[in-house]
Amino acid sequence: MNTTTHTDHHRPVVALTLGDPAGIGPELIAKLLAQTDVCQRANVVLVGDPWLWEQGQQVAGLHVSVEPVDDLVDVRGRAHMEMPAFVAMNTVAPEQVHRGQAEAAGGTSVLKVLDACMDAALAHDIDAICFAPLNKFAMKLGGMKHEDELHHFATHLGVKNYFCEFNTLGHLWTSRVSSHVPLKDAAGLLDKGRIKDATRLIYRSLQANGIEAPKVAVAGFNPHNGDGGTCGREEIDIIAPAVKELNDEGLPVSGPYPADTIFLKARDGELDAIVTMYHDQGQIAIKLMGFSQGVTVQGGLPIPITTPAHGTAYDIAGRGSANVSAIANAFAIACRMGTALRTPV
Amino acid sequence: MNTTTHTDHHRPVVALTLGDPAGIGPELIAKLLAQTDVCQRANVVLVGDPWLWEQGQQVAGLHVSVEPVDDLVDVRGRAHMEMPAFVAMNTVAPEQVHRGQAEAAGGTSVLKVLDACMDAALAHDIDAICFAPLNKFAMKLGGMKHEDELHHFATHLGVKNYFCEFNTLGHLWTSRVSSHVPLKDAAGLLDKGRIKDATRLIYRSLQANGIEAPKVAVAGFNPHNGDGGTCGREEIDIIAPAVKELNDEGLPVSGPYPADTIFLKARDGELDAIVTMYHDQGQIAIKLMGFSQGVTVQGGLPIPITTPAHGTAYDIAGRGSANVSAIANAFAIACRMGTALRTPV
Repeated sequence: MNTTTHTDHHRPVVALTLGDPAGIGPELIAKLLAQTDVCQRANVVLVGDPWLWEQGQQVAGLHVSVEPVDDLVDVRGRAHMEMPAFVAMNTVAPEQVHRGQAEAAGGTSVLKVLDACMDAALAHDIDAICFAPLNKFAMKLGGMKHEDELHHFATHLGVKNYFCEFNTLGHLWTSRVSSHVPLKDAAGLLDKGRIKDATRLIYRSLQANGIEAPKVAVAGFNPHNGDGGTCGREEIDIIAPAVKELNDEGLPVSGPYPADTIFLKARDGELDAIVTMYHDQGQIAIKLMGFSQGVTVQGGLPIPITTPAHGTAYDIAGRGSANVSAIANAFAIACRMGTALRTPV
Repeated sequence: MNTTTHTDHHRPVVALTLGDPAGIGPELIAKLLAQTDVCQRANVVLVGDPWLWEQGQQVAGLHVSVEPVDDLVDVRGRAHMEMPAFVAMNTVAPEQVHRGQAEAAGGTSVLKVLDACMDAALAHDIDAICFAPLNKFAMKLGGMKHEDELHHFATHLGVKNYFCEFNTLGHLWTSRVSSHVPLKDAAGLLDKGRIKDATRLIYRSLQANGIEAPKVAVAGFNPHNGDGGTCGREEIDIIAPAVKELNDEGLPVSGPYPADTIFLKARDGELDAIVTMYHDQGQIAIKLMGFSQGVTVQGGLPIPITTPAHGTAYDIAGRGSANVSAIANAFAIACRMGTALRTPV
């Protein structure tokens, strides 16, 4: 299948999924695909249950034409597609879904669809995945063995290298050295290797997102950046040496900077990314700067996987009022990174 | 002197100081006192070196009329004053000051002026102090024995009770359970007693600032508020029990809340204060929400002491471009709290 003649070597195949069936995902996908420029940027293939896609359009008050195809493999090698392809799966029945509730059936549905997309990625049939919001708890009820979807993805894709979640907001991306761990353990997880991995990964990912020479800053860990060692020594003993070693290997990153002012610089457009030292250091800032706009990029996987930073918004599911901004941003990043990183055909 | 008849029992005496002589303080005070409503809210007494006050007006491009008085005690008991009083001190000579440099002479000057104001406060001659930005390093060079000005104040004023710095921005105030300590030590400093002290103090201080029933939220410590204990147990073991005990003693505070979303509620006006668990948790948010507007209130002292959250801004000292917003906010808080807490005469 990968021998079909290509008319546009830079055109990625991007898979979209409907997310948790009890949330706002299907509505968001309908709103996204109704945007006129979606098929300008990628060959889009939507994967999911036909009844759920129908329902998403109804909630959104939109009708979107799609071209049914039998399999994800059928999209690769196609010329410029004028409308999204649709691969039907039967993962969940309407009567199993109760809007606004995290349930095993919904979680299983999400896992089946995402696993099919990842298998297509491993077969080089698609270049990127953008998924609508899922619910971790439902996925655990539905059989997910890992602590979160990123670890599920990494295992399914056989990833051995460093990976981490990027939180992005407009031009600004953040990575972090530690994530969902008790804050008392964050200091113990700070080492040069992890800082260098997190920095290299976001640097390369920003290049894949189209920024040739990313401006990347590394945050400090302690109040006032440790204040010369009087307020903590991690900046002196660990972070600054890691930045120096990155510089020595040719990565022009800078830092460490005081965590409570570096985001002001980023907000003013002076930076493309901040490597944060713990979860809330970046999340407090990112959520304040634009909760409804943010995108999560699963960094370090063999293909780009993106999703809105917000969740399933169970409280407003079915109302038609969900904001399409974040998934539109997530789709745009998937298109750009899918183009840059796509497997040559 | 405290026997003079009072015409306005609610009118506080507020002392202003020029701050570090090498910074933007004198310029800010000139801009503040040029505002027409300053003398509507308090009997204002400016304390400092005459040459420096003259220079501040020159930099600001303003002339402000003041009434020279011999001593701080001379302002107490005066009726509504139409212009600020000025108490001249000789703490530093012009040739000792180099604009934009942190030096011992400047630090000594700041200490002398603030100590005189605190002595007047102890003698019940003034009700509040609002000081222009100082430089901690210069003050240490100039003889300050303590880690920061708050500890200097507390010692000078003989404070034995709990005290801490509040960071405020518009309607939102924050206090914190730990401050300038290594982040790795923050978990160890989290105990019910400190959380209750920090919460009670900000609750009472907001009442003194005119808010009868403050809405105070207590932040969590770990990512996602500990996520039911899987991501840290401080919320379950320490913070929630502290909140419950505060409720039991009649303080209707709430929490703990996830640190990365509670500031969104605060920004939307749903809260008057957040009790934060460590320095950067609040500072990242407050600085992002409005770096040039913030005010620091020294909480837990026998009289209100306020100052802009920003510093001496050595890089723009002497240019006339300093922004008066934060010191105007700091003065407004000093007036309100000075009225509420003032010693009956």
